[in-house]
Amino acid sequence: MSETVGAIDLRSDTLTQPSREMKEAMMQASLGDDVFGEDPTVRQLETKLAGIFGMEAGLFCPSGTMSNQIAIRLHTGPQTEVICHKYSHVYLYEGGGIMSNSQASVKLLDGAAGKLQVEAIRESINPDDDHAPETTLVSLENTMNKGGGSVYTLEEVRPIRQLCKETGLKLHLDGARLFNALVYSGERPHDWGKMCDTLSICLSKGLGCPVGSVLLGSQATIRKARKVRKALGGGMRQAGMLAAAGIYALDHHVARLEEDHDRARLIAHLLARVPGVSEILPVATNIVIARLDRISPESFLEQLADKQIRAVKFGKDQIRMVTHLDIEDRHLEAMEQRFAQWKVRF
Amino acid sequence: MSETVGAIDLRSDTLTQPSREMKEAMMQASLGDDVFGEDPTVRQLETKLAGIFGMEAGLFCPSGTMSNQIAIRLHTGPQTEVICHKYSHVYLYEGGGIMSNSQASVKLLDGAAGKLQVEAIRESINPDDDHAPETTLVSLENTMNKGGGSVYTLEEVRPIRQLCKETGLKLHLDGARLFNALVYSGERPHDWGKMCDTLSICLSKGLGCPVGSVLLGSQATIRKARKVRKALGGGMRQAGMLAAAGIYALDHHVARLEEDHDRARLIAHLLARVPGVSEILPVATNIVIARLDRISPESFLEQLADKQIRAVKFGKDQIRMVTHLDIEDRHLEAMEQRFAQWKVRF
Amino acid sequence: MSETVGAIDLRSDTLTQPSREMKEAMMQASLGDDVFGEDPTVRQLETKLAGIFGMEAGLFCPSGTMSNQIAIRLHTGPQTEVICHKYSHVYLYEGGGIMSNSQASVKLLDGAAGKLQVEAIRESINPDDDHAPETTLVSLENTMNKGGGSVYTLEEVRPIRQLCKETGLKLHLDGARLFNALVYSGERPHDWGKMCDTLSICLSKGLGCPVGSVLLGSQATIRKARKVRKALGGGMRQAGMLAAAGIYALDHHVARLEEDHDRARLIAHLLARVPGVSEILPVATNIVIARLDRISPESFLEQLADKQIRAVKFGKDQIRMVTHLDIEDRHLEAMEQRFAQWKVRF
Amino acid sequence: MSETVGAIDLRSDTLTQPSREMKEAMMQASLGDDVFGEDPTVRQLETKLAGIFGMEAGLFCPSGTMSNQIAIRLHTGPQTEVICHKYSHVYLYEGGGIMSNSQASVKLLDGAAGKLQVEAIRESINPDDDHAPETTLVSLENTMNKGGGSVYTLEEVRPIRQLCKETGLKLHLDGARLFNALVYSGERPHDWGKMCDTLSICLSKGLGCPVGSVLLGSQATIRKARKVRKALGGGMRQAGMLAAAGIYALDHHVARLEEDHDRARLIAHLLARVPGVSEILPVATNIVIARLDRISPESFLEQLADKQIRAVKFGKDQIRMVTHLDIEDRHLEAMEQRFAQWKVRF
Repeated sequence: MSETVGAIDLRSDTLTQPSREMKEAMMQASLGDDVFGEDPTVRQLETKLAGIFGMEAGLFCPSGTMSNQIAIRLHTGPQTEVICHKYSHVYLYEGGGIMSNSQASVKLLDGAAGKLQVEAIRESINPDDDHAPETTLVSLENTMNKGGGSVYTLEEVRPIRQLCKETGLKLHLDGARLFNALVYSGERPHDWGKMCDTLSICLSKGLGCPVGSVLLGSQATIRKARKVRKALGGGMRQAGMLAAAGIYALDHHVARLEEDHDRARLIAHLLARVPGVSEILPVATNIVIARLDRISPESFLEQLADKQIRAVKFGKDQIRMVTHLDIEDRHLEAMEQRFAQWKVRF
Repeated sequence: MSETVGAIDLRSDTLTQPSREMKEAMMQASLGDDVFGEDPTVRQLETKLAGIFGMEAGLFCPSGTMSNQIAIRLHTGPQTEVICHKYSHVYLYEGGGIMSNSQASVKLLDGAAGKLQVEAIRESINPDDDHAPETTLVSLENTMNKGGGSVYTLEEVRPIRQLCKETGLKLHLDGARLFNALVYSGERPHDWGKMCDTLSICLSKGLGCPVGSVLLGSQATIRKARKVRKALGGGMRQAGMLAAAGIYALDHHVARLEEDHDRARLIAHLLARVPGVSEILPVATNIVIARLDRISPESFLEQLADKQIRAVKFGKDQIRMVTHLDIEDRHLEAMEQRFAQWKVRF
Repeated sequence: MSETVGAIDLRSDTLTQPSREMKEAMMQASLGDDVFGEDPTVRQLETKLAGIFGMEAGLFCPSGTMSNQIAIRLHTGPQTEVICHKYSHVYLYEGGGIMSNSQASVKLLDGAAGKLQVEAIRESINPDDDHAPETTLVSLENTMNKGGGSVYTLEEVRPIRQLCKETGLKLHLDGARLFNALVYSGERPHDWGKMCDTLSICLSKGLGCPVGSVLLGSQATIRKARKVRKALGGGMRQAGMLAAAGIYALDHHVARLEEDHDRARLIAHLLARVPGVSEILPVATNIVIARLDRISPESFLEQLADKQIRAVKFGKDQIRMVTHLDIEDRHLEAMEQRFAQWKVRF
Repeated sequence: MSETVGAIDLRSDTLTQPSREMKEAMMQASLGDDVFGEDPTVRQLETKLAGIFGMEAGLFCPSGTMSNQIAIRLHTGPQTEVICHKYSHVYLYEGGGIMSNSQASVKLLDGAAGKLQVEAIRESINPDDDHAPETTLVSLENTMNKGGGSVYTLEEVRPIRQLCKETGLKLHLDGARLFNALVYSGERPHDWGKMCDTLSICLSKGLGCPVGSVLLGSQATIRKARKVRKALGGGMRQAGMLAAAGIYALDHHVARLEEDHDRARLIAHLLARVPGVSEILPVATNIVIARLDRISPESFLEQLADKQIRAVKFGKDQIRMVTHLDIEDRHLEAMEQRFAQWKVRF
């Protein structure tokens, strides 16, 4: 049985292949030149997603990195500072873009499960002093990838939003996997739209699209965002083909994220029994992070690869597995079998 | 007859809709996650195009602006300077990206038909003086959009390339419409690959793809280019769908550019007879620029629009028309009829 | 007679040595740590100069370049554009700082005597279009160094100021030699303060101080300027020693600029008779620019140097001479004698 | 006795007033225009200081911030990363300049007494991965201000230097108070010159000059540094007046730093007995950092101010006192008396 399953690729939820139905939607899409603002399908996606979160407008971008980087540019600039978790994607995995695109400084905070506490934020707002850059932005990530797919609840974010309002800070939410958080918490998108000034949603992770992300914000913000997108090179022409996949995914791939979460929990159970795994971070959504001892991530991953299971190193003594649209029950069954036969070499 | 033709959109060659055959190619494409470097179709396109120009490597980007901006970042930096024509796309139409992405200064030269002369370049290389930024790059554009689709020949560029080599400057070629130039001149792509350090080719103009551009250069250059692309937000996942359109276009849409050029010349003839048109820039490729007198571009375009013909303002007393894949003989016939009935209002 | 005069250095008015009286003033100055905002002499200079121009506040900086660069940072940013003359100091001689410090684009205009015309400015304001950076600043220079020390009058600047107000642009005045302009025109400093949002005044040119410049603007602007100055590294400690020279110069070296202008006119007369000099730009203030023919600037300067007269090359067929505090009548007499004996070698 | 002493200002060693002898040296200095490279006293200072540290060349700058920022610009750029301690001056107190001047990212490490450990550095060098900026620089600070004036020894830095060489990283030393470290350790400047690629020395802290800093490095590095200095606005004219103070200080104010260290230790003893002071960081040089409990820094400083003693808040529960040239034994005696009478109010 495991033989017919073949490779099980858990490196990321970005690996999903577009389904036949999604491709059909892409083929049927009405197209125009989006640089002229004339692609009806792009507009439809932007409007649809803005509507879901109760925000005014949206902007389709080629990647989640671009959505985030545009938002950061809009809220910062030279001699300003972003407060974010030291594990945040915008700091760790976007090529140093905060500094190279926006010339902004970072205040890197710690916090359990990759999440920021309101008091830590409050204390880290720079005083009005020429020596320090001016704090202008708090950037949160939900779910928090490097925190193990952990989830911020509205209750946790509300006081942060309140602090931002009191102190004149903007709040950006990197919602690359926000739908995973919402499916977990049962909270409503509309309530999250109110929590932030800008919100980025990734289409090519759990939602299973080949390419794309949408930045949401006010009309005025998104108008400026278009201008930033142009200089970064994110203006695309008949982008409606990609946007059509996004519309399809919003209609068909949101509720099913629950399955990814269930399977992630199952993987956590399987991993917990593997020798060398010393700890599993609490699994809330579709990410499983396992801490190793007596064995390096490299060796562990190599032995996994021998079993046609792929994962990634995630810090010096950790590995990460991510469930997604292309991981089904049969893959889990195969994993269980392969794990059962595994004599871990230390 | 004209009635069945309907709107004739000559605003840009970026407006083309992907054909059914191109879409089929997109559907069939083998896909992977290109951020992991695993999309076989993206690789195929990059390799194919590099091969055509005899260059080592290629990088697929979401837009020609991004290809150009990456190249400029690689060749410049703070307190350096790019020499380019004052009409160049990289300066005029990329959102100020030379400065915002690379912090580089510009030396803007004049020159007939939007083309640079080697002597003017030589004189504008900054001396080694603390007051002036260091000149590190010459950026050419072929065909030259704002020069009326004018063409640089190898003979013109060779001395510029020679000067760059002597003085240690890099040469970037914005080849958004380079295939138009090659079809016009009959020159070989391989000879052009030798003329420059980096070369950007746009897939979504004359080639008719929905999205994309490829940056070509040495292996080392393209490796660095990937890193810049990441921070700009141009890393896409299953981008092979878009790349497949590019491969299709290289196979089917290059030779036919000749037709676009023929039709552009025909349009120039038609326009020349329209009252208010005082001059037509020489037409070499698919771009027609008409200078107006006694009538503003706005009024001229409005009257054209009444006849379901669309063009764009291009400078304070000029309009531009561009032929492309979706403009056929029947459109030209309709244009001729509509022009014949036109009483231009001054 | 000429022998006792020795070298005559006309390369720049930045070459002046502080006089004994100026040094005494420096020694007597009350000092404090200006980074803490506690240097009374710095404050006195800033307040005094702000008062002279009827502006709210001032900021002492180590150089005119820094004053200008701070102003430009305050009025621009990534994807914005400065309109300035192609001969302007901020573009040509500040190391590419507009781009490296502010990431801003430049729109370089032409205009007689290095001066901008209001209509040319109006036409060069970018439209609200994603492709173009947003025009936010006009930067003027008075006197205009590379324009031959030419002078803007209030009458010329008023319509530019009016245009800026109408269109929401800021106006920065690089007034490195503004006192020369005022002495020439007889206009009042207060009227010039009203013409601009920020104004930089250089102390180490005609005013004869060893070091320093002051940026003037509103209270709010100067507060932000302090912060920019910190990051550029312009915060100095007991800077009152330098500021004291500035106060001395404002009291003693302004009216005497008239003498520099008279001597510059005399030099123009002397130069006009030298073979090889084909044209002298009109002399308004303390700068003389001579165009050469049949002889290169290098050869001309070398022959001048043989006569212990120093000047600088200023463009490919021009040289520049500048009068200043250390050039007296006896130097002019010596020059006349030396010129009389000069057999120019072509 | 205390009455005659008056205010005791321990806020910083930047507060020192130039002595009569130093001012005399400034008055006597031979001057020239340093932007033309013609100020003999500036050259003398640069050469003298380079010689002391066995480095090739030096560059006089208006501030330590500028020296550091120039060095960082030379060693980094967009999408690169600096490794430094989270307490380092270059990150905390230079206005966000790392990002605004160089667009570089920061990797902020922890470490006792504000010092970096070689193993922590090794682990924090980014892998060759598109997602992460390229690590190119390690920046150390000696003495370490926010670490309590702590001292790196050669023994500690040698393995860091070795690691940098192995991995191709540059090493910058912010030596604002390096002479304090050398007086403490007895190590030779020459050995420190070998430890780094660039070294900044501040003249306006313990050395007692009114203004200035010198950046040291190779000939090639300093040539580039001049160009960066120009764009930042640090090119000054007759800067020899300031440089003369530096030469005087190198001749007269280095050995005496020992006295500042002795007095700092004495202040630590005095402070240790004050109620509310819970801990004194180990005192190596001229900085004393006291941790408070049951009393806020604000209240503590206010009560000190009532006794005409000034210090600064330094973190949320700490205050800092710094000894310097203008603090003498009589101030210490007065402090002791004033402390003795102090009834701390909680």
